Amino acid sequence: MSTGAEVVVNRLLAEGVDVCFANPGTSEMHFVAALDAAPAMRPVLCLFEGVATGAADGYARIAGTPAATLLHLGPGMANGLANLHNARRAFTPVVNVVGDHATYHQPLDAPLESDIDALGRWTQGSVHRPESAADLDAAVHAAVHSATSTPGRVATLILPADYSWGSTPQNLLSDNGVGGSETGDADTLLDAAGAAELLRAQGERAVLLLGGAATHADGLRAAARINAATGARVLVETFPARLTRGQGVPVIERLGYLAEQATQQLSGATHLVLVGAKSPVSFFAYPGKPSVLVPDGTEVSTLVVDELVGLADELGGVAPAPAQPGPAELPTGPLNPQNLAQVIAALLPENAIISDEANTSGVFLPAATASAPRHDVLTLTGGAIGQGLPVAVGAAIAAPHRPVIALQSDGSAAYTISALWTMAREQLDVTVVILNNHAYAILQLELLRVGTQANGERSRSLLDLSRPDIDFALIAQGFGVPATRATTAEQLADQFRTALAEPGPHLIDAALPTWSPG
Amino acid sequence: MSTGAEVVVNRLLAEGVDVCFANPGTSEMHFVAALDAAPAMRPVLCLFEGVATGAADGYARIAGTPAATLLHLGPGMANGLANLHNARRAFTPVVNVVGDHATYHQPLDAPLESDIDALGRWTQGSVHRPESAADLDAAVHAAVHSATSTPGRVATLILPADYSWGSTPQNLLSDNGVGGSETGDADTLLDAAGAAELLRAQGERAVLLLGGAATHADGLRAAARINAATGARVLVETFPARLTRGQGVPVIERLGYLAEQATQQLSGATHLVLVGAKSPVSFFAYPGKPSVLVPDGTEVSTLVVDELVGLADELGGVAPAPAQPGPAELPTGPLNPQNLAQVIAALLPENAIISDEANTSGVFLPAATASAPRHDVLTLTGGAIGQGLPVAVGAAIAAPHRPVIALQSDGSAAYTISALWTMAREQLDVTVVILNNHAYAILQLELLRVGTQANGERSRSLLDLSRPDIDFALIAQGFGVPATRATTAEQLADQFRTALAEPGPHLIDAALPTWSPG
Repeated sequence: MSTGAEVVVNRLLAEGVDVCFANPGTSEMHFVAALDAAPAMRPVLCLFEGVATGAADGYARIAGTPAATLLHLGPGMANGLANLHNARRAFTPVVNVVGDHATYHQPLDAPLESDIDALGRWTQGSVHRPESAADLDAAVHAAVHSATSTPGRVATLILPADYSWGSTPQNLLSDNGVGGSETGDADTLLDAAGAAELLRAQGERAVLLLGGAATHADGLRAAARINAATGARVLVETFPARLTRGQGVPVIERLGYLAEQATQQLSGATHLVLVGAKSPVSFFAYPGKPSVLVPDGTEVSTLVVDELVGLADELGGVAPAPAQPGPAELPTGPLNPQNLAQVIAALLPENAIISDEANTSGVFLPAATASAPRHDVLTLTGGAIGQGLPVAVGAAIAAPHRPVIALQSDGSAAYTISALWTMAREQLDVTVVILNNHAYAILQLELLRVGTQANGERSRSLLDLSRPDIDFALIAQGFGVPATRATTAEQLADQFRTALAEPGPHLIDAALPTWSPG
Repeated sequence: MSTGAEVVVNRLLAEGVDVCFANPGTSEMHFVAALDAAPAMRPVLCLFEGVATGAADGYARIAGTPAATLLHLGPGMANGLANLHNARRAFTPVVNVVGDHATYHQPLDAPLESDIDALGRWTQGSVHRPESAADLDAAVHAAVHSATSTPGRVATLILPADYSWGSTPQNLLSDNGVGGSETGDADTLLDAAGAAELLRAQGERAVLLLGGAATHADGLRAAARINAATGARVLVETFPARLTRGQGVPVIERLGYLAEQATQQLSGATHLVLVGAKSPVSFFAYPGKPSVLVPDGTEVSTLVVDELVGLADELGGVAPAPAQPGPAELPTGPLNPQNLAQVIAALLPENAIISDEANTSGVFLPAATASAPRHDVLTLTGGAIGQGLPVAVGAAIAAPHRPVIALQSDGSAAYTISALWTMAREQLDVTVVILNNHAYAILQLELLRVGTQANGERSRSLLDLSRPDIDFALIAQGFGVPATRATTAEQLADQFRTALAEPGPHLIDAALPTWSPG
């Protein structure tokens, strides 16, 4: 029994397409896994989608036959569009393979959801969206045929994840949160009085989910007071645009990225009140797991952010005194994600802005920085990686007197690495710390989570960023940013302190152990 | 009297938008020029559009007010889409300014033409396309208002070049080439017999324009025979997907990129026969200059590429003996565009593939390499820069036993620089030569050509890539590609020879004089 992804790979090979320029993500993990059983297909990892699409163009101009790409949903295809435009103008045949959310996940408007078909049409080529898993073979054939017709064109083949894993799950949608509106948001709008009544009655069975402006200091304080007055639980959305944290600001947990975490955080809730946030859905769909994270039977309602402080006043709660920061202890020893987080937390300057695209390696940061000096965290709201360095540029220009710290994973850093040059040109006070674990670690984890059995050399080569290791210190120097490399916690502390003290941008390439799934 | 671009900049300032994250092109030169008179607007140059859009997101998350971007038509916006997606999900207000072709140039389907509105809609924000130059002020106001409404969104403001320069030219469209079809292609389809009759009758008054497969060796030889038999002139389209050149292949001139050159090449033609090419239009519109390059009164017809060899047979022409290559002389002295071209030509190996994104610095390459060993040139077909390194990756994988040489300008190289890592990972035999003139030289030229008076520090800062100079050798080493730097012709020759002799990728950062418009 083949998975849908295996059907796709085998049909591509049967049609003579045997090279795939890839920059995959979670929704493409079954395609990646299928490569192990298809040694005739050559996967070529590219660190940015514009490289993959341009390579597919160059390949076909010389080979005379098309290559495939493998791109990650709409944002991944967006990154590859400009070179698809050049391919269009060259009449180059390209089989542009784009993963999509599972079909039942698409209506939930999860963070990476977008109109992939519109991007396909933009290339003036053809768009092929199979209607079922059984339609995959025919869709691949049609895409290759269209790409290679005269004149050649870009044929975009959209592969929903559930078709790739080859089963169509039933009953995975909860009854909640996908009702009247397309976005899964609640229909019931509460005012402060109504919310007060609800929270008093429900106590800890109620959960407030904070997003938008509710995650700034005032909103968080109000939410902490509401919690104190009623026992209602409070959570911050998974990827807030701007979250204030640190001394004097209540510590409010974020909803977990992993659906398993989020489900646990929301368990037992009978009422969910959205305050500037959307009703939570999982980032991706996973075989046999629910996409809607709101427990069955939970009532979902909305309170506008502007009412939050009024609600706290009405309830009359008093926020608990913020925890006193412990002495900042600097760790020692070879660098790892845990002591890296401790170093950042211990040395974090007052009023810092953190641009957080640390991804997998950043798992210990929230706990470590909870009692650090007050700071704002800007997170990756839409899941389109390559945002951390650009966001740091913008934040530094918006707030020239605040220290900006970009905590940046290696794989994502490569997407928009030229942001370093603008930091140098403008002499921005940005300290970039590359959390360099030589891997698309999040994907190694996701490969397991989507239930594939892949552990072959070919599939793992697409998730591994060693061979060669990337030396971000050299790259930074090439773009005019002074840079160092840290392999121990002591070195990181020294270099981080120096970088913060000196004006202008700095980069620290923090060498973490090469990541492999536990 | 203000230009439209000045109206736009002043209205942005009046609405409180005083930072612009920019990666402009020719169609945005009047906006750039307007910055000199608007010292309150801070322009920030980014080397890739995804940096500009992400920076605008980060700026507004901290400042609370939107920044503007400045992007180059649809392909430029495409490069910025992924971070606009993140901004969308963060509900960040962004005033996304995208230049467009002059309104009368848009129907000609020039290489950079695409559906910008569709990209704007993809962000789920608003799209603002002024209906006339008089509508600019209102359109800017509407865009800022939309961006800053609750919740914030991406408001895309599309600025046609003719509105920006503030005059609507009349009678700049020729009667030719924009007839029945949207693309300006000819309606009359010739067969070989009909073409033979036409060319015998018209001689040098006829021009064959070759594109697509007609620019491979067989097509070029057939075209040379046709020229010998009838005197008909033969040209290759400006940006062929794949052009065979060198020993044993007739030298056929390419239609010039500059409209002034192209107009001269086509002057006196009464009949234009398109063979795999489109009817020529200028790359951009320029104030007071025609966009259609076909002379008035010229009849345009089409011959399918497959008929080309048959036509040559029917006419019975004999191609002139190809010129014998002269002795390959290696130049000396400080590196400049001319001796760089001589070094490449003298050392070009047999059967090479050149990925040509040399742009301004490559002006001497075609003449120098005409009698080099036979090779294929892959050019930038769609004008979306950042294609040269990815195309080289694809070509090297398609033809593992052919040497691949990427002649790559510095500004464009920064777009997809991570292609170097894939070259290292796959150990591709690619020799990258960065033609590093520390400038967006083509834009310094275009700034003059669009008739602006800009020579202020602010406008020039957006076209200058020094401060800091980019060291591509360091960056290449960071991505795992051995690299050197050449400042003299002798060094370039040594390093180029070594790079070709050793397996795997190499990069040579060729330091050219900093470009400034003559």
